[in-house]
Amino acid sequence: MMRVEPNAPSQLLQAAVEQFASLPGVGKKTALRYALHLLKQPQERVSLFVSSLDKFRKEVRHCQVCSMITDDEVCPICRDKQRDHSVICVVESIRDVLSIEATGDYRGVYHVLGGVISPMDGIGPSDLTLNQLVERVKSGSVQEVILALSTDMEGETTSFYLYKLLAGHAVTVSAIARGVGFGDDLEYADQLTLSKSIANRQLFTPNI
Amino acid sequence: MMRVEPNAPSQLLQAAVEQFASLPGVGKKTALRYALHLLKQPQERVSLFVSSLDKFRKEVRHCQVCSMITDDEVCPICRDKQRDHSVICVVESIRDVLSIEATGDYRGVYHVLGGVISPMDGIGPSDLTLNQLVERVKSGSVQEVILALSTDMEGETTSFYLYKLLAGHAVTVSAIARGVGFGDDLEYADQLTLSKSIANRQLFTPNI
Repeated sequence: MMRVEPNAPSQLLQAAVEQFASLPGVGKKTALRYALHLLKQPQERVSLFVSSLDKFRKEVRHCQVCSMITDDEVCPICRDKQRDHSVICVVESIRDVLSIEATGDYRGVYHVLGGVISPMDGIGPSDLTLNQLVERVKSGSVQEVILALSTDMEGETTSFYLYKLLAGHAVTVSAIARGVGFGDDLEYADQLTLSKSIANRQLFTPNI
Repeated sequence: MMRVEPNAPSQLLQAAVEQFASLPGVGKKTALRYALHLLKQPQERVSLFVSSLDKFRKEVRHCQVCSMITDDEVCPICRDKQRDHSVICVVESIRDVLSIEATGDYRGVYHVLGGVISPMDGIGPSDLTLNQLVERVKSGSVQEVILALSTDMEGETTSFYLYKLLAGHAVTVSAIARGVGFGDDLEYADQLTLSKSIANRQLFTPNI
C-alpha cells in the first residue's frame, strides 16, 4: 500500500523514508509514518531531533576504564566512589549494562567487552576489550569478576577464554545464576534450563 | 528493563533516546535500539541520515495546485500532461494520495484537504484547502470531483460541506464505492458495511 516509487511526488520524502527504513525493524510503511510525523512538527522540533542524534553520534565516547558509553573520559559508574570497585561484572554490550542498572540492585562496576568471540563473524579476542579487563584485574584491587555473557556457543567460548585468562590472577571468577525465571511456569521452561536449575539447586531460604 | 535514568551513563544517549521516542508508536525500548544502532554505524552514514531528514523538513513544500507534498512549486502529478485533469479525487492527507497512487490505476489528479472539519479539534473549513478546490472547479475544466474522505462523522461532515459548496457549479460530485472488500469474508464485515453493500448492489458483470 505504501510503496514510494522513484517517480514519487517528492524525492525529499523518498530520501527521508529510506533513511528511517535503515533503522532496525523499520519497514517502508513505518518509515513513511515517521517522515510524515516530522512534517507535521514545527521546524525547531525537527532541528532539535536532528541535532540531538547528530551530537549523540559525534560526541559520545567509550569509558576509558570499562568501555561503557559516556559523555566524558570516564563513565559516571566508574567515577562513583559509592560503588564497589572490587567487583566487576563482565557484559557483552552497553544494553546489558543498562538492563542491570535498571534493576537498581547491583553495586559493583562493569566491563563491556563490545561483543563475544565469534570466528564465524571474524571477531577474535583482540577485537574485544579482554586485555583491558586483565589490566584492571592486575591493578590488584579487584576481588571478583562476574561473567554475565550469553549462553550460546560464542558466549560460552568467551566466558571460558576469560576464565583461562584470569586463572593466574588472585581473583574469584563467578557467573550469573541460570535457572527458571521468577514467575515462570516450569512447563514453559526449556529442557536445558530446567535440568540445570535442578542440578544447581540451592538450600531453600523462606522469605519471612 | 530499559529505563534510562536522569543519572544515566550518558546524557547524549538519553537525549537521542528521547528524540526517537517522540516518533509515533516508538517507546523507550525501541528508541534505545534505534540510538544504539546509530552508534554502530560509520559517522558518514549517520551524517547522511541526519541531513536527509533535516533537508526533507526544510525543503519539502506543498503543491500550489493540489497541496500534495512536492520538491517544486507544482507536484509531478499536477504537471503530468498524460493525466486526466478533468477528474479531481479529494482526499484528507498526503498518505491517501500515496495509497491511491500505489494502486497504479487512477489517472485523474488530486486535491489534498489537509484534514477534515472537526469542531472538537478546532478544525474549521478555513483550516482546510476547500476554497482552493472551489477555485479549481471554477476554472472550468473540471468535470468530476470524487470524494474519498473517511466515513466517520468528521469525514461525512466534510463531504457534505463540500457537496453543498460545489452544488452551484457544473461538476459531477461522486464518492468512492464502499462495501465488503475483495477477498474479505462476509462474516467478518461489520453490519453497516454489509448492509450498505447490499443496498448499493450493482449489476453482476462476469469476469471472462
